[in-house]
Amino acid sequence: MKVVVPFKPINPKSRLSSVLSEGERKKFAELMLLDVVNVLRNLDLEIKVISTSKIDLDLHIDFLEDNRTLDECVNSELNDVPKAIIMSDLALLNPETVNRFLSCKEDVVIAPGRKGGTNMLLVRKKGFRVSYHYCSFLKHMKIAESAGFSYRVFDSFYSSVDIDEENDLLELLIHGEGKLSKAYLEELGFFIKFEKIPTLGRLRTKN
Amino acid sequence: MKVVVPFKPINPKSRLSSVLSEGERKKFAELMLLDVVNVLRNLDLEIKVISTSKIDLDLHIDFLEDNRTLDECVNSELNDVPKAIIMSDLALLNPETVNRFLSCKEDVVIAPGRKGGTNMLLVRKKGFRVSYHYCSFLKHMKIAESAGFSYRVFDSFYSSVDIDEENDLLELLIHGEGKLSKAYLEELGFFIKFEKIPTLGRLRTKN
Repeated sequence: MKVVVPFKPINPKSRLSSVLSEGERKKFAELMLLDVVNVLRNLDLEIKVISTSKIDLDLHIDFLEDNRTLDECVNSELNDVPKAIIMSDLALLNPETVNRFLSCKEDVVIAPGRKGGTNMLLVRKKGFRVSYHYCSFLKHMKIAESAGFSYRVFDSFYSSVDIDEENDLLELLIHGEGKLSKAYLEELGFFIKFEKIPTLGRLRTKN
Repeated sequence: MKVVVPFKPINPKSRLSSVLSEGERKKFAELMLLDVVNVLRNLDLEIKVISTSKIDLDLHIDFLEDNRTLDECVNSELNDVPKAIIMSDLALLNPETVNRFLSCKEDVVIAPGRKGGTNMLLVRKKGFRVSYHYCSFLKHMKIAESAGFSYRVFDSFYSSVDIDEENDLLELLIHGEGKLSKAYLEELGFFIKFEKIPTLGRLRTKN
């Protein structure tokens, strides 16, 4: 199976700017990409990272620079199917979840993120077109239906957690054992505050 | 399989008090309980609701009034295994997810919620004890390990969404097709605002 991982290296994860500097966000985003690529590499998939600009990482996999919008890039990729589109900020992914996802037989498989996102997408038939904003999850179901394609919503916690906001960092600390991105957060002083409902804490070791 | 659903009818869902009145929260919590019970009933499971006080609903299933703490109630129940503990606010549950959960063979199966919660728990061996606060997910893994029990983290988006906060209502509107609790939110005027990242809207039709 061919898997495409879109990546945006310039000013990434802007919704984390209240807790991470631009430099920290850049490194954090790269480490999440690495975490995702490491999972996919273990499964012997044909991986391609599509990035809006050059990146410094040596990923040892196919790399394409493409500064078109996310929708345009992915729609180009979907001219060649079957193909999976997996977001680069799914730091909690593991091989078992990705295998279960890729084993789904439907024409279109949608793994939802919070707030109506589409975190992983598997397309087996030509003619599907993506539209990633304004509640893409509901849109992608409608697009599959209109095209007469069979579709399934993929039920996974790990793929539902895209790391966008401060709250998501807590999920990475709780569930991200062994991940590079989790280790980096800890290096930056982040920790789990064990309150009745846990929250994110930060020890200011730097600056 | 025996399934226990703990329920707290007095001042429920207090973290939703900024968007729902006490009366609305009471009815909403009851409808979520009904949504959960309806899923379990379709699977022919032996269901028992344990409530901290009497409720007005006629659920046509076993009902136990028990005003001890959640931990005390559940630990009593775990003297008789195998047993599953499923929270009453998992409005997005469906039969496929519950079946997949109950099919796990490990001694202990933990379905995480956001913020370190334990939303569903399956215990097959005597001697496991719960502790539901201060990041119960991590605690329950450690408790299983200490007891020498095999355990698994159950990977499900639907069971990870416990409806506690305003953001969770958006998830119910997006994913809750056919649920009584979703219909009630719509009756109260809630809707999905289709912005670039969707948010929760409310049309004030009442008051």
